[in-house]
Amino acid sequence: MVSNPGLEGVVVAETNISLVDGLNGKLVYRGHWAKDLAIRHTFEEVAHLLWYGFLPNHSKLHELAQSFKKYRFLDADTKQLLHQLPKELDIMSAVRTAISSLGHRYDAWPPTEEDALKLTAMVPTVIAYHYRRQKGWNVIEPHPELDHISNYLYMLNGEVPGEALVKALSAYFILTMEHGMNASTFSARVVLSTQSDMVSAICAAIGAMKGPLHGGAPSEVVNMLNEIGSKERAETWIRNHLENGHRLMGFGHRVYKTRDPRAEALKEVIRKMDAKDPWLDLASYVEDLAIKLLEEYKPGRRLYTNVEFYAAAVMRAISLPMELFTPTFTASRMVGWTAHVIEQGQNNRIFRPQSAYVGLMPDESMG
Amino acid sequence: MVSNPGLEGVVVAETNISLVDGLNGKLVYRGHWAKDLAIRHTFEEVAHLLWYGFLPNHSKLHELAQSFKKYRFLDADTKQLLHQLPKELDIMSAVRTAISSLGHRYDAWPPTEEDALKLTAMVPTVIAYHYRRQKGWNVIEPHPELDHISNYLYMLNGEVPGEALVKALSAYFILTMEHGMNASTFSARVVLSTQSDMVSAICAAIGAMKGPLHGGAPSEVVNMLNEIGSKERAETWIRNHLENGHRLMGFGHRVYKTRDPRAEALKEVIRKMDAKDPWLDLASYVEDLAIKLLEEYKPGRRLYTNVEFYAAAVMRAISLPMELFTPTFTASRMVGWTAHVIEQGQNNRIFRPQSAYVGLMPDESMG
Repeated sequence: MVSNPGLEGVVVAETNISLVDGLNGKLVYRGHWAKDLAIRHTFEEVAHLLWYGFLPNHSKLHELAQSFKKYRFLDADTKQLLHQLPKELDIMSAVRTAISSLGHRYDAWPPTEEDALKLTAMVPTVIAYHYRRQKGWNVIEPHPELDHISNYLYMLNGEVPGEALVKALSAYFILTMEHGMNASTFSARVVLSTQSDMVSAICAAIGAMKGPLHGGAPSEVVNMLNEIGSKERAETWIRNHLENGHRLMGFGHRVYKTRDPRAEALKEVIRKMDAKDPWLDLASYVEDLAIKLLEEYKPGRRLYTNVEFYAAAVMRAISLPMELFTPTFTASRMVGWTAHVIEQGQNNRIFRPQSAYVGLMPDESMG
Repeated sequence: MVSNPGLEGVVVAETNISLVDGLNGKLVYRGHWAKDLAIRHTFEEVAHLLWYGFLPNHSKLHELAQSFKKYRFLDADTKQLLHQLPKELDIMSAVRTAISSLGHRYDAWPPTEEDALKLTAMVPTVIAYHYRRQKGWNVIEPHPELDHISNYLYMLNGEVPGEALVKALSAYFILTMEHGMNASTFSARVVLSTQSDMVSAICAAIGAMKGPLHGGAPSEVVNMLNEIGSKERAETWIRNHLENGHRLMGFGHRVYKTRDPRAEALKEVIRKMDAKDPWLDLASYVEDLAIKLLEEYKPGRRLYTNVEFYAAAVMRAISLPMELFTPTFTASRMVGWTAHVIEQGQNNRIFRPQSAYVGLMPDESMG
């Protein structure tokens, strides 16, 4: 009865925001190659592109950057709320709870670019706040001058990060901020479609991202590389793993049937970092070996490194602990979610599909 | 490119929970007519039916009722959170925020009936807490002995309600607790499908319900009847309204092409209340007149009273203020949402549809 399980292949929206061309390994954001954007542009520029449809000129960019600096500071109510949350609450739930509590202040219909910016600007602050509180560390107020990416690392660690780290994390943010009609983005559009509001849509998206089938993969890549441990052990480990019928984490993608353009771009950025990190060296060795072995064990499947593999490498390079992987992905995807929410609001129709009842029927005579 | 806008007519899930037969005006909950359940059974019994698949025997019902009584009491963290929320926060956002803050405590995979009960039990308490706080009234602790519906009214008003009011609100709860693949239920299933958790799915559903295209209609019926004001003015008002191209609130339904079985059942319950309320008298008069005039202005469209019309009547009969209409709908729909979340978890597949890119393409030479 369900003709397309999981709605696979069903077109649910037209969009101007991105094209995910899995067959050719291309990712386009509003007329630009995502890969070029990640290498040549800043997070703020690409956020402007996704929200407004064009890259900002100098004065627009200055304005946007100033707004990011302003709205990263939490208001007293939100600080108070975060201060009261149980420390055991996971970071994703904490971010959703903080955003949910602003429901009365971001309820414009249709949703606006300004609200998109305000919510996107505050998410790293909430993540850093709750993370440091969980650790029992003092909370670090946002830096008033740093860019969005540098300030995130600053709030996490208390140090102004070096240029190479910022460049790597910036590329990660740009390459993961948008990716078509994935489960979280779709949930945001479904929620907005009742003429609800941006806060409601984002709360849904955060909940979808929380699930391990969506936002959880880079941690598993790190676990895998930690298990492999050294170049010497790599071949035996991978052969055993594949012969026991397990999947290799960080390889293959539901959409991309060739090289994942995001992995390619992240790899390029990391190589430019001039990192002599032994872990990155192992990752690169495992990549080449795994692609060879995958072709041997699963010929013709063309399984390549996906974005999670190099996302894991970036996370390692910037020393980000695993519990921050999904929240960091959330901080970047905020841009794509809010862009889709704005687009849904501009040409809205409520989502109301059908279900097929396969249960019992009552006795007709009783009806 | 979008073949079914809003996914209309697209079957996205098989379900054992309910059949919404719009053509014949029938609503089935797990093999039982919803109308019969509303007239002959209690809220607790029907919640058990939707969660577990069968009506409870005496001992199971006793157990369930005891659990409802236990879990309606908020823990200290949740009380503290509610106490800190801005009073300007709308009730729907407050309920979502409270549930969101429990993300670490309801994260079982697959989701369980026990978690469904716990979350459903606490929602009326959160609504009443925030509502009374907004009004500047003292908060009323849950009653340890009353049933779910009586306790809700008790927490709102501070008085143990009479049997007739409880029967009317109970029928409303039973008839609105589930209704197939509406936008909120669908959003809950999409969020859960990433192997997320019940809290995440419910937060999404609450956000969808918040939108006026979904949860907002009974208030508009009340507004309409207030505007009409008296039987004498009814015909002129309705004729003017229809001649100016406006819709009559509370008439017609996207799914039901005949009488809405929920409206029928609510009408029957209200008639049994023996209410001499002039407002109910007006509602009944307007219903008969409007159906006649709709047939005159829109012949063949078969527009009948829908559930919102009599939901509005019930809300009036129990003196529920308008700002509590959508939260009360939420308190009832918690049962259906959680039942669908459990069902989705039992046979899960991630929702990941497609979008059609209609934006610009980059210059190929730059790729």
